Amino acid sequence: MTDNRPIGIFDSGLGGLTVAKEIYQLLPHESTIYLGDTARVPYGNRSPKTITNFAIQAIQFLIQANVKAIVIACGTVSSVSLPSLRRQFPTIHLIGVIEPTARDALSQSKQFNIGVIGTNATIKSQAFEKTLKSINPKVNVVAQSCPLFVPIIEEGITHNHPIINETIKYYLADIKKSSIDTLILGCTHYPLITTPLKQFLPHINLVNPGISVANHLQQILTTQRLLSNNQTTIHTYYLTDKNDTFEKVATLFLGEPITATQISL
Amino acid sequence: MTDNRPIGIFDSGLGGLTVAKEIYQLLPHESTIYLGDTARVPYGNRSPKTITNFAIQAIQFLIQANVKAIVIACGTVSSVSLPSLRRQFPTIHLIGVIEPTARDALSQSKQFNIGVIGTNATIKSQAFEKTLKSINPKVNVVAQSCPLFVPIIEEGITHNHPIINETIKYYLADIKKSSIDTLILGCTHYPLITTPLKQFLPHINLVNPGISVANHLQQILTTQRLLSNNQTTIHTYYLTDKNDTFEKVATLFLGEPITATQISL
Repeated sequence: MTDNRPIGIFDSGLGGLTVAKEIYQLLPHESTIYLGDTARVPYGNRSPKTITNFAIQAIQFLIQANVKAIVIACGTVSSVSLPSLRRQFPTIHLIGVIEPTARDALSQSKQFNIGVIGTNATIKSQAFEKTLKSINPKVNVVAQSCPLFVPIIEEGITHNHPIINETIKYYLADIKKSSIDTLILGCTHYPLITTPLKQFLPHINLVNPGISVANHLQQILTTQRLLSNNQTTIHTYYLTDKNDTFEKVATLFLGEPITATQISL
Repeated sequence: MTDNRPIGIFDSGLGGLTVAKEIYQLLPHESTIYLGDTARVPYGNRSPKTITNFAIQAIQFLIQANVKAIVIACGTVSSVSLPSLRRQFPTIHLIGVIEPTARDALSQSKQFNIGVIGTNATIKSQAFEKTLKSINPKVNVVAQSCPLFVPIIEEGITHNHPIINETIKYYLADIKKSSIDTLILGCTHYPLITTPLKQFLPHINLVNPGISVANHLQQILTTQRLLSNNQTTIHTYYLTDKNDTFEKVATLFLGEPITATQISL
């Protein structure tokens, strides 16, 4: 059995394109519909109720666009709203970023010493920490918020520059000194600074949530017999606001430019 | 004649506290009511209509609080909405940041070569440039947006640190090489990095909009006979959202902690 309907990918903004990129690579026969709520990004400082309401609107839009599964690429929505979204939409596969990433980190860590870096909102929610501990109560977690990484990455400063190198040193000096062997990049922006992160932390294994989610999605589509056999795939992009910088930022995250349609939710 | 009613100070967030600080110093007998729309900050990427609507709500709140004049400390509101706000509220003194700062810069520049730094929104609006040229058509203006300054300052990294020094070098290398003799700090956050800016640009005169606005306000209150003779003054703070970091950021901007009341507009 096959299912040639597209996969929905929802993010509060454009960072989810790093997840989309991994899905395109791992599942080249799948078409996708990306929805970025760029008019209301960032979600991080909003109330859980508001975040869930925004996510409900996005999921309704994607269901109307006839997707077969929805990846919630947004760390904030994944950590705050996923259980209530699953109750609200019981018939569609909803795949968040937290659990697949936590499982990968645990399977890759030799000593169950895991670091997590993310935005203020993600670190404060302790979503990764709680999920890691629910899977393996013996895990030791070191968490560090790195609020400057997102604006620096969006400015296009991702490697070979003292601004990003000094900022990595500023936030991760304690992580470097700790005994962690695996570090979760708990924000969709962070895979873009993999190179300078590896330079600063050469002995620590980095976990990219985009890869974890793509693998988990592949598993679900395979076991549920929902894989597509499209020979030509279409990647469609909807944004709630096309501001001046979206093309630059999208190219940064995806590695190629996108054409997007502006919609209202 | 005296008028002991408070002065209203409106900003989209907490950055306007650098303006408040200058008003407290120059006008120690004036009470103030500060209103920061922290639930909806930043305004920079919103449409002019939305920005004006937000500002109307804020001004109505301050008028109900019986202020005698209102300082619009927000660069975005000052550049986008001030003319229509003056039509809407003809009986209250509305003082924006752009014009007083532009006049000060022109009076301080020896060669009429003036630089402007600000957020993306402020630089794109060309508000300072247009105002400078409307006052003196012969002025030469060099503008540079510096989007990383605000997040770095809000992280508390304001001096003696390679992150801010490298970022200043990144944005201002061209300004340093240019022939400007005066630089407008076109964002309420920037006075906090005066020390490293002066180190990098030792021969350039820096214009702090907070000082320009406080001087202009003093002039208006004096000529209109609205100065207060309060012996004890009260500085009241209203915010539309008291998030986790407001106390830290407020202390950074004002030099002392504040007690704020949360309100809805």
